[in-house]
Amino acid sequence: MPPKRSGEFEIIARYFAPLAAGVAGAFGLTDDAAFLDVPDGHELVAKTDSIVATVHFLPDDPPDLIARKVLRRNLSDLAAKGATPRWYLLDAAFPKRVGNAWVSRFAKGLAHDQAEFDVSLVGGDTKATPGPATFAITLLGIVRPGRGLRRNGARAGDEVYVTGTIGDAALGLMARRGKLRSLTAKQRQHLIGRYQVPRPRVALGPQLPGIATAAIDISDGLVADLGHVCETSKLCAVIDETSVPLSTPAKAALAARSQLMEQVLTGGDDYEILFTAPPAAAPEIARLAAASGVAMTRIGRMEAGRGVSVLDARGRRRKLAQGGWTHF
Amino acid sequence: MPPKRSGEFEIIARYFAPLAAGVAGAFGLTDDAAFLDVPDGHELVAKTDSIVATVHFLPDDPPDLIARKVLRRNLSDLAAKGATPRWYLLDAAFPKRVGNAWVSRFAKGLAHDQAEFDVSLVGGDTKATPGPATFAITLLGIVRPGRGLRRNGARAGDEVYVTGTIGDAALGLMARRGKLRSLTAKQRQHLIGRYQVPRPRVALGPQLPGIATAAIDISDGLVADLGHVCETSKLCAVIDETSVPLSTPAKAALAARSQLMEQVLTGGDDYEILFTAPPAAAPEIARLAAASGVAMTRIGRMEAGRGVSVLDARGRRRKLAQGGWTHF
Repeated sequence: MPPKRSGEFEIIARYFAPLAAGVAGAFGLTDDAAFLDVPDGHELVAKTDSIVATVHFLPDDPPDLIARKVLRRNLSDLAAKGATPRWYLLDAAFPKRVGNAWVSRFAKGLAHDQAEFDVSLVGGDTKATPGPATFAITLLGIVRPGRGLRRNGARAGDEVYVTGTIGDAALGLMARRGKLRSLTAKQRQHLIGRYQVPRPRVALGPQLPGIATAAIDISDGLVADLGHVCETSKLCAVIDETSVPLSTPAKAALAARSQLMEQVLTGGDDYEILFTAPPAAAPEIARLAAASGVAMTRIGRMEAGRGVSVLDARGRRRKLAQGGWTHF
Repeated sequence: MPPKRSGEFEIIARYFAPLAAGVAGAFGLTDDAAFLDVPDGHELVAKTDSIVATVHFLPDDPPDLIARKVLRRNLSDLAAKGATPRWYLLDAAFPKRVGNAWVSRFAKGLAHDQAEFDVSLVGGDTKATPGPATFAITLLGIVRPGRGLRRNGARAGDEVYVTGTIGDAALGLMARRGKLRSLTAKQRQHLIGRYQVPRPRVALGPQLPGIATAAIDISDGLVADLGHVCETSKLCAVIDETSVPLSTPAKAALAARSQLMEQVLTGGDDYEILFTAPPAAAPEIARLAAASGVAMTRIGRMEAGRGVSVLDARGRRRKLAQGGWTHF
């Protein structure tokens, strides 16, 4: 017998309406649409992203972490646009085996991240599905007109930067699957945490317009996402793999098995920001890194040409089996 | 062997990017988010709704009609808010058995309705799913501040109106399942068409602010949706079932089997607008109906109390087995 789940209206009233309490125009989710005030002198920025059980998360992952991950994936995208997130809408399709307790924990995960990132639920839809749990979030934010960052603004001679550290999530997924046994339990846990709860650069993103020429969040993998910047900017990128910033657990994993560098470079789910900026912006970037407490590491440069080249410690071009994650 | 489906990026570039051609800030879906210009002096109106194969449509329904239905469900909601739709984002989860030909027909359905209703795709996400096809659309529109219609504005003494005709979609679903054999093939086809391709009142909706006190689109069923207005307005409604406007095929179905009145009153998917207005607004409503060519029929009134009462031809209160459609 499946666990008890209340009807659609009760689910919304009990678990989701409290998440809309901060926005008057969401009417406590008692109406069919939300009325939202985009302040004069701003553009609206809109983004949607979905996750499917068994494809993007494991059905036995903690429900609060699933919720936080799908919200954070969207927050990360908006941060890389230089936008400030405000509101989101949620489409949730729950399988029968999902009961009230699961939905409650899912909503608690959203509540946690709403408080952390100052966004509110303003609408949504809950449905039953005979298939896997499927969640889609549309995130809405604001940015000053013309200040939003895009993938295609890089110029030849620009330097390539990344925030934070790269590869932790890809290694965390391996650790969660019982690999990386040479690491300590604490190191493995650090990497798994980075996989399960990414830290989108929400506060930092809106400070990049005026400094960065192009930006993207690293979700498909460093090489693949840098590839998107190259493709839309009609340039190539040359990066030096010894400059790619690594966490201490990632360094330990690579010390034990150097071939893992490929996972670091092409694994997805980092949710750091990759951006390009002219060399003259270096002092300002250093100031921003110091003020924000977020590391910003120069890993390469943009040049005329096509594609992404990764140079290894001896300056040789690395052959990569795959450029990054694709969904089909 | 499943039919061929291209990778995510190719699917987007080939089938969905052309749908974004009309909005500069959607960048042909080559970026992670859209930048949208909400004109000064307007509020943003946001709404999301999803459909799941086997629950909300049949897997062998024509792909273009599935696409149009999910878009039209959202358009109908925004129309009932008095808002003008502008942009939408699509989250599509395709099962493996869905190949390029299916996706192409799905996108053609969207293209058809974009042209008809003057909206554009500005973002989306396509994923593979091991479960049923699942589509979520978030629709964004605009309305003058304070002019948006809500469910909760009805006042005692207001009259209850509906646009168009009621019950066709519920009867259409029966016809599609091989019932209503007393009707002609043409009558059945009319009803099936109303079920498969609802006609949201997109042009009419924005003309209702200033006339209507409350509005809702009829998706869960006349009685259930009127019940939402009653509940949020803290009133009851008394409707006269002989005033409920019926199409000629629906009249024929009822003539053959009068018990079908229950399906008419409680079946969903009408996608007409139900609204309330003071008696003094009657002349203006008549003028609007004449100018727009959309029938607007007074079916009852709002009173102090709770719930919805339906009076039959003899003025007796009808007992209804169910109030309308719920999703769980």
